[in-house]
Amino acid sequence: MDIEQFRKAGYQAIDRICNYYYSLEEKSVVSKVEPGYLRQHIPLEPPEKGGRFSSHRGRLPEIHTSRFDPLATPIILCLFSNGMHFRRDARRFVRLKYLQPWVQSSPACTELEAIVMDWAANLLGLTPAFMNASGVGGGVIQTTASDSVLVTVVAARARHQREHPDVKIQSWTCVWRACSCHDVDLDDQLSLRGEALRNALEEDARIGRHPFILIATVGSTSSGAVDNIPEIREVAKDYPSLWVHIDAAWAGSALSCPENRGVLHLQDFNAFADSVCTNFHKWGLVNFDCSALWVRNRKNLTEALDITPTYLRTKHGDAGTVIDYRNWHLSLGRRFRSLKLWFVLRGFGVEGFRKYIRRCIELNNLFAQQVETSEHLQLVTKPSLALTVFRLVPKPESPDQPKFSLGSLNELNRIFFGRLSARDNIMLTQTSLNGIFCVRLAVGAARTTEEHVRQAYDIVNKEAKVALESWEQTANTNGVTIVA
Amino acid sequence: MDIEQFRKAGYQAIDRICNYYYSLEEKSVVSKVEPGYLRQHIPLEPPEKGGRFSSHRGRLPEIHTSRFDPLATPIILCLFSNGMHFRRDARRFVRLKYLQPWVQSSPACTELEAIVMDWAANLLGLTPAFMNASGVGGGVIQTTASDSVLVTVVAARARHQREHPDVKIQSWTCVWRACSCHDVDLDDQLSLRGEALRNALEEDARIGRHPFILIATVGSTSSGAVDNIPEIREVAKDYPSLWVHIDAAWAGSALSCPENRGVLHLQDFNAFADSVCTNFHKWGLVNFDCSALWVRNRKNLTEALDITPTYLRTKHGDAGTVIDYRNWHLSLGRRFRSLKLWFVLRGFGVEGFRKYIRRCIELNNLFAQQVETSEHLQLVTKPSLALTVFRLVPKPESPDQPKFSLGSLNELNRIFFGRLSARDNIMLTQTSLNGIFCVRLAVGAARTTEEHVRQAYDIVNKEAKVALESWEQTANTNGVTIVA
Repeated sequence: MDIEQFRKAGYQAIDRICNYYYSLEEKSVVSKVEPGYLRQHIPLEPPEKGGRFSSHRGRLPEIHTSRFDPLATPIILCLFSNGMHFRRDARRFVRLKYLQPWVQSSPACTELEAIVMDWAANLLGLTPAFMNASGVGGGVIQTTASDSVLVTVVAARARHQREHPDVKIQSWTCVWRACSCHDVDLDDQLSLRGEALRNALEEDARIGRHPFILIATVGSTSSGAVDNIPEIREVAKDYPSLWVHIDAAWAGSALSCPENRGVLHLQDFNAFADSVCTNFHKWGLVNFDCSALWVRNRKNLTEALDITPTYLRTKHGDAGTVIDYRNWHLSLGRRFRSLKLWFVLRGFGVEGFRKYIRRCIELNNLFAQQVETSEHLQLVTKPSLALTVFRLVPKPESPDQPKFSLGSLNELNRIFFGRLSARDNIMLTQTSLNGIFCVRLAVGAARTTEEHVRQAYDIVNKEAKVALESWEQTANTNGVTIVA
Repeated sequence: MDIEQFRKAGYQAIDRICNYYYSLEEKSVVSKVEPGYLRQHIPLEPPEKGGRFSSHRGRLPEIHTSRFDPLATPIILCLFSNGMHFRRDARRFVRLKYLQPWVQSSPACTELEAIVMDWAANLLGLTPAFMNASGVGGGVIQTTASDSVLVTVVAARARHQREHPDVKIQSWTCVWRACSCHDVDLDDQLSLRGEALRNALEEDARIGRHPFILIATVGSTSSGAVDNIPEIREVAKDYPSLWVHIDAAWAGSALSCPENRGVLHLQDFNAFADSVCTNFHKWGLVNFDCSALWVRNRKNLTEALDITPTYLRTKHGDAGTVIDYRNWHLSLGRRFRSLKLWFVLRGFGVEGFRKYIRRCIELNNLFAQQVETSEHLQLVTKPSLALTVFRLVPKPESPDQPKFSLGSLNELNRIFFGRLSARDNIMLTQTSLNGIFCVRLAVGAARTTEEHVRQAYDIVNKEAKVALESWEQTANTNGVTIVA
């Protein structure tokens, strides 16, 4: 869809809002639909092909594709969150929600999110156990991966306390992140191994710690590192109280393509993980924010986050047959979070989404290949999906020349990165892997072309040469040893 | 501004997005503006009068008024959060942000939020100590009041631990809410009194608890109750380590009108509170979500939430001269949160905002007066701003008729409320005040008219009569005693 088609659809969206306000007085104040009404109009699986689609009996606008998802918001805000004679508002609603949690707070908001999160789970190949349709597990959209982790930690902590009422937990101090607490080896591509995990857990037990959650990373933002889920799964068998959360914030979108599922250990975490998170705003065509969180047992969320007084709870609600997302996140109110993702999945379809992901990976591989064949640039880790982590390493003048020290190479790469950052026609980021200063290139935009990637490499290569000269100069003039 | 003007402005917004995409290739990838650039273009105080305004050198669109704030979002998403050759993304940004926290992550996002939060503080009459311009305190937009409270609790806990490293805090168990933990009296309009607070704090000390935060309510959602801030202030003098957070989520907007500042104790909490929160999405013309949080000392937020490694911190950043909102909330990335509020304040101006608030209060008073003069309806608490809390109490047939029991009156009012909830042309909510089942009416929509309020009263009055009949019938047939 081109820009003019976008303009047309945009005007249509504005017109819908105007029509809504013109007919406001005739509208009923309270929704009268029944739970599940939307499932009757929307297929349980995402469409294979994207494109235009008929609105659901005029309930939702005929707008789609990634650039369109911003349009979702004004429509939602105007059609669902405003314009009442007596204004709706999540807070003033809460007591009423106790009695009719579902009907009162924009039913479509809950209904569509439940469906679209199942679509997304289907797209990524998650087990049906994580889907809302299972009635046990389910998916909910959080703000960011940080919020998804926080909600998960709160749920894991509550579960641990229910299972071990005798154990006093020193709260957050127990949150135990593989990424931050454990040495991972560059030879393992910075992947957390089972042995390191087991040693850590045994050490924790020895000193009387009670870790209740492991946050394993599948495709770290920094280097694309994938923890060794099969090994972690083996270890976790011996620690049934340990909640395992899979943080696939960035790489999760790549699970949409079957060819990536093996390397990302989908089958393994499908089999045992308690929760999984993917940020569609990171690499999934949806604009910030849209952090998709799936849990194997929704009751672990509601048991920890439900603020409904017992005397107002209904068997109905507790059975989880009716989803009340108010009890699946920290806030009370929530935006109509699912519409952006819905537009993207409807617009692109599974086919279009996969095509986009494959294109990003293809373009990154093109860049990585150029780095590999270059004289002075070196990959620090294997290219991971759409991410390349590299640095500048001068070619030795002779085979017997001693190696450069880590410090001097980091110094060189800081100069290199400083020069790249000073430019306004490229934006790369840096990272530090086990003390090694690196530069990162990630492809994620739908509009990125091969031409852009070649331009990027030319700039990188040019700045590398300049950085190298100034570094050698400084080194020589200051007589600094750049030898290990 | 009428609907057709909205349509015109809406089309303009769409056109701006299209122009942006047409000129994308010519744009630089990284912003080159300097910190503070926006303050040079925007006055430090909110405009007295609303209306159209010239865009800031074309940087921001000429759109305003409440119904327009939804338009802010697509513009932001398209103009600031997308369309890069190499896509921007808060997560992939973080390392770069360490070095240039400000420039890299949509500078306008930070700059405008800092300015607009000062505008809002000015509108509500908050002390300059809470403004970003102070360089010490400051304001930030959170998602909901729950998030504001959570961030505040984390900051308060961290401060307490810095001041009392010897004291072990059992984390959340210490969070101490006036509203939930303490008996308040209907005769005090459910306001927390100083004596109750002092007794509670002394009791906590006796049993070895270390309360580190008091969340005082100024205009509770449930009944509009305002805690006795002057008395709390006196008590707080003896507890310097106790963080006092003012939750004015709903009533805060009323502070915009000087005549409400006395009853809401503005002067007192301006003098000593550590933080204040107002949700402009509750009663401030902004659509969900927009929870404004101000703190007296921003370092208490950054000390608790800053994830910047020490070796990358700069004196510059630590001095707080450059705001990095990433360290003022729980998430890493954030939306362009301020634009909605900015549109509303520009569109309405201080004058228009006050007019809207006064109108809501006026309409609520109209409803409350009708309740007072009615035969069977009774106010449970004094009308608070735009909120009326009432219930149905049968008029005694004779002066010597014994009073009805609380249980039977609650039973009656549940029938009453059930009937109101079954209707689709009115939406009221219920609450329970010290065991008394009550019905709530709150006015908040800009489009609510006197006619709507009169209609609402007629419906309420009609349903009251029907409820009364069926209740008396049930009582008589079941021989249930409805006497105290």
